[in-house]
Amino acid sequence: MDSTQDTRKRAVVLLSGGLDSATVAAWLQREGFEVHALSVDYGQRHSIELEAARKVARALSLADHLVLKLDLRGVGGSALTDFSIDVPKGESTMDPVASDIPSTYVPARNTLFLSLALGFAEARGAHDLAIGVNALDYSGYPDCRPEFIQAFENLANLATREGVEGRPFKLHTPLQDLRKVEILRLAKELGVPVKETISCYDPSKNGTACGLCDSCRLRSQAVAELES
Amino acid sequence: MDSTQDTRKRAVVLLSGGLDSATVAAWLQREGFEVHALSVDYGQRHSIELEAARKVARALSLADHLVLKLDLRGVGGSALTDFSIDVPKGESTMDPVASDIPSTYVPARNTLFLSLALGFAEARGAHDLAIGVNALDYSGYPDCRPEFIQAFENLANLATREGVEGRPFKLHTPLQDLRKVEILRLAKELGVPVKETISCYDPSKNGTACGLCDSCRLRSQAVAELES
Repeated sequence: MDSTQDTRKRAVVLLSGGLDSATVAAWLQREGFEVHALSVDYGQRHSIELEAARKVARALSLADHLVLKLDLRGVGGSALTDFSIDVPKGESTMDPVASDIPSTYVPARNTLFLSLALGFAEARGAHDLAIGVNALDYSGYPDCRPEFIQAFENLANLATREGVEGRPFKLHTPLQDLRKVEILRLAKELGVPVKETISCYDPSKNGTACGLCDSCRLRSQAVAELES
Repeated sequence: MDSTQDTRKRAVVLLSGGLDSATVAAWLQREGFEVHALSVDYGQRHSIELEAARKVARALSLADHLVLKLDLRGVGGSALTDFSIDVPKGESTMDPVASDIPSTYVPARNTLFLSLALGFAEARGAHDLAIGVNALDYSGYPDCRPEFIQAFENLANLATREGVEGRPFKLHTPLQDLRKVEILRLAKELGVPVKETISCYDPSKNGTACGLCDSCRLRSQAVAELES
């Protein structure tokens, strides 16, 4: 492991600008990692997310923050990148008991982002990756489930020089079993700049959350629950 | 499966501009697929590759050719994307018995490119992916081995709406057990425009192959063997 050469272990976190990934970054710091953040500029509707990611990286004094540009609009297939599909509002596509996959699902997104994180980690000598998937996401997004996470870790260790040569990668998902209110509580404990984060699927140009999409409603409920 | 709605099955191929992936594209056509090609503009030294990919796509009359731009130079770690690392010449880093991983290895490249192909396939209603990995690559590149291919197919079917809903993806590697001379023979049988393809790791600006890198030497040997 790198720890024989470096005084601090390095980890790569996928930083979206939302509450969850910011909490994961702070959690990695508490675990003793030097944190290298990766954000993907994938032609999303809300580039305001990337600005939030930059603010979070600065506020937490992360070791490094790389923003990779990748224009997924040519691929299409999601309400978050395809401007011809409306973001659903006021209906519960994130409901834990719903079986339908929401239109905000981006084809192969976590596979793709984790692949980028893996390449970044390998190039920087990190053996730990982290992503902010959590229980409420499982209902709709196949690439947030524990079996997906396990399959990706398995792939990472077959795909890379580090994995093949016996220095395996570990994929951390510290929020996996947490509800939104528990994530919010953890974020506050860890000193995450919650106000700087944005999770809205459809913010205004100046970064104001819509308050109506699934992500906003989930967050409002958590705030209310924590305060009650 | 999509074949109930479409008259032709669709497949996505990763098209690099090299001989191998062009042969895979033509193989898919012979298998009855409508072929959608994906090339990745990843800040490689030799953008001449992308021009070759465009020529191959046109010559084979592929249904579609998407070039996705992704600047991996910020990630670093490979002689093919990091301009401070020299491409090895005249030494056998592709030797089937060599155990070292060559410096032309790009961290997590096939994982990343296959993830892009998977997203593209899902968005276009294709359930078949194909990549031109082959036996001689196994020596050095972990992400060309059959166990990696199997792990990616497994991941794809956990990661996606299509996989989860029972319409699984298949990852084809028709060149897996072929030597370079056998690939060249197949390419000629299938009418691949061999002259338009380029596999050199370090071509001149006008697209002339260097003749000295591993990839050039492997191809020259195959041509000589086929003609002898």
